[in-house]
Amino acid sequence: MKATIISIGNELLNGKTVNSNAAFIAAKLYEIGIVTGRIVAIRDETAAILESLEQALAQSEVVITTGGLGPTPDDITKNALANFFHSEMVFNEAIWQKIEQRFRQRGIPAPEVNRVQAWIPEKARLIDNPIGSAPGLHFETPSPGGIAAAAGGAAKHTFVLPGVPQEMKAIVAESVIPFLRQKNAAGLIEVRLYRTTGVAESKIYELCRALLESRPEYEVAFLPKTTGVDLRVALREKDAAKKQRFAEFETGLFQTIGKYIYTTGPEELEEVVGKLLRERRLTLAAAESCTGGLVQDKITDIAGSSDYFIGGMVAYSNESKMRHLGVRAESLQRYGAVSEAVAREMAEGVRRAFGADLGISTTGIAGPGGATPEKPLGLIYLGLATAQKTAAKKFLLIGDRVMIKERGAQAALELLRRELLGMES
Amino acid sequence: MKATIISIGNELLNGKTVNSNAAFIAAKLYEIGIVTGRIVAIRDETAAILESLEQALAQSEVVITTGGLGPTPDDITKNALANFFHSEMVFNEAIWQKIEQRFRQRGIPAPEVNRVQAWIPEKARLIDNPIGSAPGLHFETPSPGGIAAAAGGAAKHTFVLPGVPQEMKAIVAESVIPFLRQKNAAGLIEVRLYRTTGVAESKIYELCRALLESRPEYEVAFLPKTTGVDLRVALREKDAAKKQRFAEFETGLFQTIGKYIYTTGPEELEEVVGKLLRERRLTLAAAESCTGGLVQDKITDIAGSSDYFIGGMVAYSNESKMRHLGVRAESLQRYGAVSEAVAREMAEGVRRAFGADLGISTTGIAGPGGATPEKPLGLIYLGLATAQKTAAKKFLLIGDRVMIKERGAQAALELLRRELLGMES
Repeated sequence: MKATIISIGNELLNGKTVNSNAAFIAAKLYEIGIVTGRIVAIRDETAAILESLEQALAQSEVVITTGGLGPTPDDITKNALANFFHSEMVFNEAIWQKIEQRFRQRGIPAPEVNRVQAWIPEKARLIDNPIGSAPGLHFETPSPGGIAAAAGGAAKHTFVLPGVPQEMKAIVAESVIPFLRQKNAAGLIEVRLYRTTGVAESKIYELCRALLESRPEYEVAFLPKTTGVDLRVALREKDAAKKQRFAEFETGLFQTIGKYIYTTGPEELEEVVGKLLRERRLTLAAAESCTGGLVQDKITDIAGSSDYFIGGMVAYSNESKMRHLGVRAESLQRYGAVSEAVAREMAEGVRRAFGADLGISTTGIAGPGGATPEKPLGLIYLGLATAQKTAAKKFLLIGDRVMIKERGAQAALELLRRELLGMES
Repeated sequence: MKATIISIGNELLNGKTVNSNAAFIAAKLYEIGIVTGRIVAIRDETAAILESLEQALAQSEVVITTGGLGPTPDDITKNALANFFHSEMVFNEAIWQKIEQRFRQRGIPAPEVNRVQAWIPEKARLIDNPIGSAPGLHFETPSPGGIAAAAGGAAKHTFVLPGVPQEMKAIVAESVIPFLRQKNAAGLIEVRLYRTTGVAESKIYELCRALLESRPEYEVAFLPKTTGVDLRVALREKDAAKKQRFAEFETGLFQTIGKYIYTTGPEELEEVVGKLLRERRLTLAAAESCTGGLVQDKITDIAGSSDYFIGGMVAYSNESKMRHLGVRAESLQRYGAVSEAVAREMAEGVRRAFGADLGISTTGIAGPGGATPEKPLGLIYLGLATAQKTAAKKFLLIGDRVMIKERGAQAALELLRRELLGMES
């Protein structure tokens, strides 16, 4: 099966918005063995939509459009699709009620202009939108009008999705991919993921190069992100069938880079740490300086984190480090706020203040100001206090302010992971 | 003038790389009044390149391709272009010398595979690449072979650029844009941005619909995000020249939706709030429950925020609300942690504990657990304490856990903005 993605919206063509929706969809399709042949971004114009649809359905079995389903006049996708598939528009009372209910939840009446979102092409199957008001649409066409029929005449599938990233992602993950996975069972690719942090891409490559070269049949990709490098290994059906051979490969991978791998699943590091805390029935408190709340923000992104996360501090000033965390004036004066001593005292102080089993702390220079020759931009100390011991670790991170915050928070979570697993940190 | 951007490379179609190159080029073109009608991402395949070029040159006067100019066998763009424009390939000694010199600087001899980068289509004008070895190419075609000639027969321009972002950006900024600006002097566009929060897209539209309809010549776009809606108004040169008429429009806009507009610049709300705090020489502390540190994370994303942000707490448990913020046990028992009373006490408590001028607080149900019929998912109370008064405000937010955190944090920042400006909240 081949796919075309059509991204609709002037903001994409004016360069205001980067088309990350299309990359998300293409990656999801790729995981189930569907190759995207073309991604087209076009303006909110009926003629452009019709022309792109015609070309897309001539070249591929799956077409996914995003954007143009909102309530304002520049949202013309639905009518263009109805036009293309020669479908009447009908008013769907259930959708209108859902829209009204969403507004009621916010305590305001649904504006009249939102009624247009309840008009739906009759020939479309509705796809539930779990987090927004506009449903997705699915047109199945054996040989649609105006289109060169595909050889074999297999059914073609056009999915029409909202452009709001969260809504689009939810519909793709919960409805579109499960549907297409079934249709494309034969072309399946199995994808294994190994998520690492705290190690450079080139270093990982060096460590497992010989191993990777021993398996030229596996398609390997290194995906560097701000907070780590994901290693993705894609297996064709025939590779995946050779289970023993793959098990040996995976063992080798863990022998060489295992200590950097925090998960083989899709989850983020904060979820891994949360699971470990929950399993061990331990509680956590955090004291942040340079990361400014980001460690706690990440931890509390996980549902149920209130079971193990008690709370913490953002102690930006020296005064607040002393008053609320019991950091000693002498330590601040002698070593400075960005020091191993202060990181240790912050971790101990927040553990004590919140009555937690573990205390984690961050103090560093996120920039752009504040750096000195002795304490350069990106210097961070992390502290970790438990009932038994207190430790501190020094890091030199690179990037701008936001990247240093991101990398510092990730390093703090990784320090917690290794502590909870009894690994060397 | 209209443009098409053709992005070439398998990584774009596998979802591995987000096409930020195209957004960069489109934004640069838009600034000089050239509208991008279509962005197409295709695989490294000759047939796809030829087909896309033909379509692009039929629809637009400017075509820009990126990618596929490297030295490895998957880099086929240059040969496909030579084929398309019926041009011989010639070896360019000057380019080869430049390549050799670049390798010499790194202390290694130029690999033989790099020689392919010195073979250039004879009909192309070379564009200097200030930071890489592969030059850009420029084909000027009055009426190229195989293409439906445009009405009027004006010259068309095809620019062929490397895919490495830094090299592409340098060539676009230093050569392509200056060239095209001269060719398109008449079409300049001016773009105005109005960023809003705390109001639904449909509500904004309803409020300023009559006003927008009175100016059909302005190109208006509503750009909804998780934390608000941006309104963008683009003016053609002739619209922008009618300054008085535009000033009236803008006055009308502020009369109808002004209280929701937090900036007319590109900055985020946390930067606006930071500027206001700095101007007024006021300091801030924050006490977060449901937003879990996100308010403070956003505030500290801004360089120099330590000048006005003292610190704060993430008080996830009742115990920590009482111990560190002085929330009364009676309030927690009588009204619950998610209540106006507790929001007020948290704001007062954190203001006092950190000795700040303003205290902001959040407490709510981010879900997925914890909701009851009386206290539904998305219910949030924000508290705001100053030397003069304490206020609390109730919100009903929608979305998943992360979206509710995002929207809650944005609402807290907006509450601060309105307080600092002396607006009704």
